[in-house]
Amino acid sequence: MNNKISEKIGTDHPHFTDLQSFVGSNSNKKVIAIQGLGFVGAVMSLVCANSVSEEYAVIGVDIPTEKSLRRIKLLNEGSFPLVADDPKIDEFFENSIKKGNFYATANPNAFELADVIIVDVNLDVEKKSNNDFSLSKFDVDLANFKFAISTIGKFCKPEALILIETTVPPGTCEKIVKPTLFDEFLKRKLQTNNLLIGHSYERVMPGPEYIDSIRNYPRVYSGINEVSANATEHFLKTIIDVSKCELTRLDSTNATEMAKVLENSYRATNIAFAVEWSRFAEEAGVDLWSIVNAIRVRKTHANLMLPNIGVGGYCLTKDPLLASWSRKNFFGAEDDLKMSVKSVSTNDQMPVYAYKRLKKVFGNLNGLDVAFFGVSYRGGVGDTRFSPVETLYNLVMSDTGKIKLHDPYVKFWEEQNMKVSNEIEEVLNENLDLIIFSTAHDQYNSDNLIQKIMKLSDCNVFDSVGLLSNDQISLLRTKHKVSVLGRSDII
Amino acid sequence: MNNKISEKIGTDHPHFTDLQSFVGSNSNKKVIAIQGLGFVGAVMSLVCANSVSEEYAVIGVDIPTEKSLRRIKLLNEGSFPLVADDPKIDEFFENSIKKGNFYATANPNAFELADVIIVDVNLDVEKKSNNDFSLSKFDVDLANFKFAISTIGKFCKPEALILIETTVPPGTCEKIVKPTLFDEFLKRKLQTNNLLIGHSYERVMPGPEYIDSIRNYPRVYSGINEVSANATEHFLKTIIDVSKCELTRLDSTNATEMAKVLENSYRATNIAFAVEWSRFAEEAGVDLWSIVNAIRVRKTHANLMLPNIGVGGYCLTKDPLLASWSRKNFFGAEDDLKMSVKSVSTNDQMPVYAYKRLKKVFGNLNGLDVAFFGVSYRGGVGDTRFSPVETLYNLVMSDTGKIKLHDPYVKFWEEQNMKVSNEIEEVLNENLDLIIFSTAHDQYNSDNLIQKIMKLSDCNVFDSVGLLSNDQISLLRTKHKVSVLGRSDII
Repeated sequence: MNNKISEKIGTDHPHFTDLQSFVGSNSNKKVIAIQGLGFVGAVMSLVCANSVSEEYAVIGVDIPTEKSLRRIKLLNEGSFPLVADDPKIDEFFENSIKKGNFYATANPNAFELADVIIVDVNLDVEKKSNNDFSLSKFDVDLANFKFAISTIGKFCKPEALILIETTVPPGTCEKIVKPTLFDEFLKRKLQTNNLLIGHSYERVMPGPEYIDSIRNYPRVYSGINEVSANATEHFLKTIIDVSKCELTRLDSTNATEMAKVLENSYRATNIAFAVEWSRFAEEAGVDLWSIVNAIRVRKTHANLMLPNIGVGGYCLTKDPLLASWSRKNFFGAEDDLKMSVKSVSTNDQMPVYAYKRLKKVFGNLNGLDVAFFGVSYRGGVGDTRFSPVETLYNLVMSDTGKIKLHDPYVKFWEEQNMKVSNEIEEVLNENLDLIIFSTAHDQYNSDNLIQKIMKLSDCNVFDSVGLLSNDQISLLRTKHKVSVLGRSDII
Repeated sequence: MNNKISEKIGTDHPHFTDLQSFVGSNSNKKVIAIQGLGFVGAVMSLVCANSVSEEYAVIGVDIPTEKSLRRIKLLNEGSFPLVADDPKIDEFFENSIKKGNFYATANPNAFELADVIIVDVNLDVEKKSNNDFSLSKFDVDLANFKFAISTIGKFCKPEALILIETTVPPGTCEKIVKPTLFDEFLKRKLQTNNLLIGHSYERVMPGPEYIDSIRNYPRVYSGINEVSANATEHFLKTIIDVSKCELTRLDSTNATEMAKVLENSYRATNIAFAVEWSRFAEEAGVDLWSIVNAIRVRKTHANLMLPNIGVGGYCLTKDPLLASWSRKNFFGAEDDLKMSVKSVSTNDQMPVYAYKRLKKVFGNLNGLDVAFFGVSYRGGVGDTRFSPVETLYNLVMSDTGKIKLHDPYVKFWEEQNMKVSNEIEEVLNENLDLIIFSTAHDQYNSDNLIQKIMKLSDCNVFDSVGLLSNDQISLLRTKHKVSVLGRSDII
């Protein structure tokens, strides 16, 4: 991946010189502008360029930063900027190149041309502490988001549908998006009463079903009024395959915004629950994995989670905080969402706990030759945003001064400014003292790899993601010391 | 129900005068003694008396209190002491009367006769506060449980299998049961090395599938050693229908004990999660019910719970506390199980919140004529133990001085020492000012009942259990004021 698709398929990549030439060569097509070309927006662009029932011309728009300009250049040259395991990404990108219906730009004039504008910009939470998320200890920064909305308001057609996909504090469409667009429309002396604003959140899962997690996955949507909700429904039905999944309309944008952060808070809370019980399991000398599997046979308990090194990615690490922030700032509540907020601090502490266990089991790490297997935040993806591996890496690094890194999906770890090997052989060598399984990539769940580790003369293993099977643990323990998070070390 | 089954079926009830005559008339059968004849033990007795693959003589044993002696008398006269919606209860009890293979007694000599002894006694948590469960604020009382175990140790055959079903703090079999039995065996100058102790927890759900929730429901089991685990497995296979459900063996009694309290803590935590979001939903003017239903279509989120008046019953109100207690007292941890413990206080506060909302929406309740529909802790059952209705009832009572009570399954509310009507007509009358739906019994989910409420001239409705459909709410609102927990009151 990351190669030029246009060269691969022997197609002349269409070199549009500007927006007008792009739109001109796509006449008779409705235009979709997608603001934000990150992990959601870039793939959403592909889904829209390969729509189900209507042909669109799709313009990916980003603000001009060094990173986004590089990304825009890559896209327009025929290289998709994200690495993932999903073959449909290549396929969809290839199709859009053949059709010439996708163009990326930093030029906000794109919004003038669009019939539908989809907002996929980030809305970040700045954490001031790692384990205290009372309201004074984190900030929700709405400035970039507001700027994006007012840019749209300055340029958009008055009849365009503006569809918010960004995860926002509940209340944002009503309290931020609508008044911001109103203001811009008033400045432009436009009518505001026909403004179409919809909200529908994505459930993107970077990984082997990246595209399908948008295209074939149930969706919840709403509008600021019935006309907006109808327009949103009409549009979604052209890009989502509703023969394979359901669309659910909720009464208000408050409701769909809340649904999104509730979904992720539920997940974060269930993970935090597993965390505290994995501590207890270790103390009581039992294997939480077998307990959880025994309980999951109950349908009412199927969502019980397994313990892990921690929670990463862009959503679960912040969405409960967005919700709690909204509750107080938008709706005047006095309470935090205590359980949900607590889940974030519990989860953020997981890699710290993993480090403590590591030291407890294996002793002083000074001078050890350590390898991390996996840097991305979950198995099967190359996404390192807010990866819990980062915290553990920094802690171990402070002891050892050097660490070898492997990940099948990551060549360069941006957050750490570090090269990462994609070849296990480059990392696995006779001098290795400790292997840390830090991401549950399928590639590591291999008896072949275990055999290679068995050949090392003296190398301990710390499985922080529950990757190893009972048999693999038993085998490794005949030669090496092995510790697994959530399991007893009493052998 | 609660009628004499023996009369109903025209069978002479076998009047055993003592244990010997009972066992004599059941010669060639193995004997099971079940200690504790409450919500689990009584029904477990029926399951054992109607076993799958071996004929047993079953003796229900309880300590001689006024209540248990009354229960023993009822059982031996052919009246089953629990009311539930499950027709199999009558059927199984009837069969056991016909076969003459069930006898109840307060005589601990029963244990001398038993090949298998099942422990179903209560192990209670005493809460000293309603919203603070830090470790100093509740007590785990092991005295009764220990007494029950030492009584068994004084009488039991040395080769009997002693199977613990009581929900206990993890570690109890190893740290309490085993040493207590050892002590008693030593006093009796018996060998201790053949002691058989198993642990397998029930997942009893009082209600329409009461019997099947024991007989056809997956089970987790263990033993203090392999021989004990094997004996437990062998026994369970004779009473559980393993063609319909799985048995899962875990490595140690610590593990199965932990599995039980983890299961219930998971449930309690998920309910507490729904609680805090239902507050937020009300504040933001949205309907949490539709949000939860939209999210539950995701398999990973199917266990998301709906908001409610609160959590009741014997398990979820205490099991997270048993776990946290064990973690500190048996395994020396410094931490509470914070999320799990927090769920108990969150849930215990739910009826208090319901009361506050009631007052906020309907104003002063003084002098109002109020009816509660439902006193049991959940729909479909007559179990009032730790019913959340109790807290709400007490709070409303302090304003109104009188309350009408209805419940289809409860004739007498023991905890409140109050008669309860089983006839809706007795409660529903023209003077009624406020109806509170307090238990989600199916009987209340009836358009017929809604029509009757519509005929009242001025009666508000507070649905604290999400019983009413959108259509029913809309209809009622054409005439009355209606408020629903977890939904906006903005109409």
